[in-house]
Amino acid sequence: MTYKNIDAYLEAHLNESIAELSRLVAQPSVGAQDWGVKECAALVAEMLRRRGFRVEVMATEGAPVVFGERAGKSNKTLLFYNHYDVQPPEPLELWETPPFEPALRDGKLFGRGVSDDKGHLVSRLFALDALLAEYGELPCNVKFIIEGEEETSSTHLHDFIVQHKERLAADACIWEFGGVDHREVPMQYLGLRGICYVELSVETASSDVHSGIGGSIFPNAAWRLVWALSTLKGPDERIRIPGFYDRVKPPDERDYALMAALPDPAQEYKERYGVQRFLRGLEGGVDLSIAEVFEPTCTICGLTSGYQGEGSKTVQPARASAKVDFRLVPDQRPDEILRLLRAHLDAQGFTDVDITYLGGENPARTSPDEPFIHLVVEAAREVYGMPMQIVPITGGSGPLYPFVHDLGLPVATAGLGYPGTRAHAPNENIRLDLYLKHAKHVARIVSQFAT
Amino acid sequence: MTYKNIDAYLEAHLNESIAELSRLVAQPSVGAQDWGVKECAALVAEMLRRRGFRVEVMATEGAPVVFGERAGKSNKTLLFYNHYDVQPPEPLELWETPPFEPALRDGKLFGRGVSDDKGHLVSRLFALDALLAEYGELPCNVKFIIEGEEETSSTHLHDFIVQHKERLAADACIWEFGGVDHREVPMQYLGLRGICYVELSVETASSDVHSGIGGSIFPNAAWRLVWALSTLKGPDERIRIPGFYDRVKPPDERDYALMAALPDPAQEYKERYGVQRFLRGLEGGVDLSIAEVFEPTCTICGLTSGYQGEGSKTVQPARASAKVDFRLVPDQRPDEILRLLRAHLDAQGFTDVDITYLGGENPARTSPDEPFIHLVVEAAREVYGMPMQIVPITGGSGPLYPFVHDLGLPVATAGLGYPGTRAHAPNENIRLDLYLKHAKHVARIVSQFAT
Repeated sequence: MTYKNIDAYLEAHLNESIAELSRLVAQPSVGAQDWGVKECAALVAEMLRRRGFRVEVMATEGAPVVFGERAGKSNKTLLFYNHYDVQPPEPLELWETPPFEPALRDGKLFGRGVSDDKGHLVSRLFALDALLAEYGELPCNVKFIIEGEEETSSTHLHDFIVQHKERLAADACIWEFGGVDHREVPMQYLGLRGICYVELSVETASSDVHSGIGGSIFPNAAWRLVWALSTLKGPDERIRIPGFYDRVKPPDERDYALMAALPDPAQEYKERYGVQRFLRGLEGGVDLSIAEVFEPTCTICGLTSGYQGEGSKTVQPARASAKVDFRLVPDQRPDEILRLLRAHLDAQGFTDVDITYLGGENPARTSPDEPFIHLVVEAAREVYGMPMQIVPITGGSGPLYPFVHDLGLPVATAGLGYPGTRAHAPNENIRLDLYLKHAKHVARIVSQFAT
Repeated sequence: MTYKNIDAYLEAHLNESIAELSRLVAQPSVGAQDWGVKECAALVAEMLRRRGFRVEVMATEGAPVVFGERAGKSNKTLLFYNHYDVQPPEPLELWETPPFEPALRDGKLFGRGVSDDKGHLVSRLFALDALLAEYGELPCNVKFIIEGEEETSSTHLHDFIVQHKERLAADACIWEFGGVDHREVPMQYLGLRGICYVELSVETASSDVHSGIGGSIFPNAAWRLVWALSTLKGPDERIRIPGFYDRVKPPDERDYALMAALPDPAQEYKERYGVQRFLRGLEGGVDLSIAEVFEPTCTICGLTSGYQGEGSKTVQPARASAKVDFRLVPDQRPDEILRLLRAHLDAQGFTDVDITYLGGENPARTSPDEPFIHLVVEAAREVYGMPMQIVPITGGSGPLYPFVHDLGLPVATAGLGYPGTRAHAPNENIRLDLYLKHAKHVARIVSQFAT
């Protein structure tokens, strides 16, 4: 089978596809700020309908899920998982062009969500356009599940999947992201850590008070928060919540071999993020790679209390809060971590520290020995000049668990990301060459999967 | 001597004086935000000139000092210390009327700085107006030193006073504030704690990073800050910086007796600030009163790091900072505390935590046995229906030290404050009845001091 015509179609119509992506990126869809989410779902639904998909915008208790399906030639079914929501654009002052005004420069398209995840969605639709243009039909049945809460821990997706198991039935799944590493090698990420995201908050008085009065006799919300946080993890990086590590599975020999085959990330990380040293005395190599993804974490993502302006203000704050995320590894569970956290804070005397659960996901993995994984890995060879390299689990999180454990699917990654893509950061961008390659890769995956 | 005419003048001209005060409050002068400071100094200078003072707006390395003097009948000299700068008005949304649009309601004038300290200054000028109207001259020499950095730790005032010792020479000083307590008893505060205000900041990377990558292998600025802070003070409220308490003088018997004569503040504090409990197991009474002012403090006034918006954002912050104030008691010194703090952080492994010194002041006290104190305390009797009650030291800070130790002056407080005055908070206000009483009190102090 040759992909000459397919590739020619994609190369000829790239600008049109980028124009469609730009329209989608221009529609804000910031779930955390409840900004434009419904409008974006409607726009995505329309994009699928234009391509002959039967589409339903399905309500959840949170953002709606866009579901689309179109029958194809073979009776096999491929499910694509994508999301239309994006991260908050802040800090705005660091964007070179406004986050929701997509801008092309240096062979890249810039904008919030252009990589994570709108670019992935549109390049996949682009691949289907090429197959339809060539064959007049899709090689197999294709389904899309496109949610609007991925950036806020996919709060309602697990229930949604369990509820709509039959409709979502498929033989395999392509995940929302993927891409090349700094060597331009396409990577096959086979697992995701879970997450438990909480806000810890304390209120010690009904109003702030002059620090000359309150300092030595009134409880201070900021101090309560600092002390509570300092019981969660110490400078040795060991998480001190009793029971936290009980369900952690260490990497096995196969994992270790796959991780050892990866390039040492140390130098790249130092240059990209301006980090001087790594934690736990790590220098680099396989130990650094394994610590990055096989260790659970406790990360303070934000701190807020009292006066934050210029100069000094002598006030004792009545309120303080912290955003904290725990990345979880198999077989940890966010609801259990939440219970352990509450019990720990209570036991340490911090019954005054409230926990607001902002979302959680179970960790999950697909086996590297699945035939579908082999197919996706090999389909990359013609496009990228090499097969994909397999990574057993990656550091991020996502709602992988219900796809693997409720729908029973092998889940492969494929995508247009690259190390400079700046997902979640200012100046998020995609490279147009990788956008085109991803579309070519997807066209091959769908074609070969159908047979 | 009778004050019948003086009091009649003050009662007849109250509205005019409030109008003058309103014009001064409408001029923002937020030192921490470098907003309107010079304009306010010029306005204050003009107010003194109108009253026949020789005035000089004297440059410092920070905000200018307004100095004014006018000779009087006797050869004794009374120095008034005031300040024209105000606290930042934030949080703006809690003000019932805008902070720089003074508003009269319920017998009160609202606005930022109306109590702290513009109302004090204008009511004193009002008292001098009455004396000038009655006698055509001032009973004694009067000097004003009105600075613009009181709310930012009076950074340059100590040096200024040492430099201009002869010009500032006087026999006694009236401090910038004072007022009645919740029983309407006028209070004589005879000392101020010192302060050492710092910002602690950490930078661990050149940019924020997705928490799925950085969480287990990159240093997190927010964690570094939390751990560093948690070494400064524990939940037992004992400050853990070695040497911190070395120069602390406990209260003596005279202090204890004066403190024991004060009313129990416990109930009032619980109601006013919505505080459920006090620190160190204190219930109230003299122990609470003594802890409030004779203990040094370490107060977190603000915390800033990472994402602080709604919902969740999975980002590991590269920067974090805290505003921290230490209230100091005799004979602690801010420069020494700063050195001890640096040494402590270094010893605890926090060489990565930077300290920015935002200002400091030495603690200082005037003896309750000074004849001038007796004069001011007794001068209140006719106005308030009782003499002032003496408090040996109060919880706040101010640049008292150079007045007491460089100029060698007895320093008394007198003022228009009251417990609901909300200095440093939204809806700062003064009561017009207390404004009038303060002017009457000042007229008596000046007259009796002259003889």
